[in-house]
Amino acid sequence: MATAVESFRRHSVAGTSLQMISDELGLTKSAIYHHFRTRDELLEAILEPVMGELEKLVAAAESARGSRAQADAMLTGFVALAVAQRTLIPVLTGDPGVGDFLRSRPDWSAVVQRQLALLAGVEPGMAGQVKAAVVMAGIAAAVGVDYPEAGDDLARLQDELVTAGRRTLGLRSPRGA
Amino acid sequence: MATAVESFRRHSVAGTSLQMISDELGLTKSAIYHHFRTRDELLEAILEPVMGELEKLVAAAESARGSRAQADAMLTGFVALAVAQRTLIPVLTGDPGVGDFLRSRPDWSAVVQRQLALLAGVEPGMAGQVKAAVVMAGIAAAVGVDYPEAGDDLARLQDELVTAGRRTLGLRSPRGA
Repeated sequence: MATAVESFRRHSVAGTSLQMISDELGLTKSAIYHHFRTRDELLEAILEPVMGELEKLVAAAESARGSRAQADAMLTGFVALAVAQRTLIPVLTGDPGVGDFLRSRPDWSAVVQRQLALLAGVEPGMAGQVKAAVVMAGIAAAVGVDYPEAGDDLARLQDELVTAGRRTLGLRSPRGA
Repeated sequence: MATAVESFRRHSVAGTSLQMISDELGLTKSAIYHHFRTRDELLEAILEPVMGELEKLVAAAESARGSRAQADAMLTGFVALAVAQRTLIPVLTGDPGVGDFLRSRPDWSAVVQRQLALLAGVEPGMAGQVKAAVVMAGIAAAVGVDYPEAGDDLARLQDELVTAGRRTLGLRSPRGA
């Protein structure tokens, strides 16, 4: 699965075949087929745990009191997930193949829509929706960038992404910083 | 070229062949080959005018006085370009095939790096770099989303994206709004 994600990153989902993955691993194609009959089955296996995590975060954020607390819980949860899945998240959010796949799983599309609604809830109407879209796509891409200053300090990266997201959404830091 | 962009959006660059485009247009493959011998040549022809525009925007922003005015000029210019190229920009920024291609053209990679440096110049170090990455990727993705409230009102979309970007970067609106 790690080999598949690396291939998705380099060649995109549509440009990746099970044959390429088995070649990369030095396995026969039938060894891969034993686990995944199609690329979609492989993609589903990769997405399943991340979407499960995201659904838990969305449900927890929805249970917070008030739209600002809900947006903040969603933001901080998503940033933590994005940092923990730093290799995977930028690949998943930019690739048209993943978008197609999500549309074929209405339960997962619904989770993404609930996430967007939570982030958009701070400001009514389109103003909130545009900011939610900027924050979600922006964080998913920015988490994959190399910042020389950060090195391996993922806590620093996480802090900076939360700060950026709060600014965009118009949320104050809980400690007023 | 419009057919190619639509295919990139649906199937990503790696999942698009010149054969698919000629099939879609009801042309023979040799009719396409008359104009583009490879998919990279086609991608280059699509990117050329956009990168030319972006380079002009970057040069204009660099000539503004002070880092805040530079960042604001870069932001407003990029949002205007993204709205004008609303079909193309979300495809170009998310696709790994485009990233690979940009790396093969150091002159174009340099333009993107200058754009990021202008947006990051408001705040020193990593704090500014993270916000620049969020703004650039966030706007490129958010411009492609459908907002029911906006309909065909692209000026409204442009305003909302500029507002979101200024917030993230910590820039005031010139009129203090």
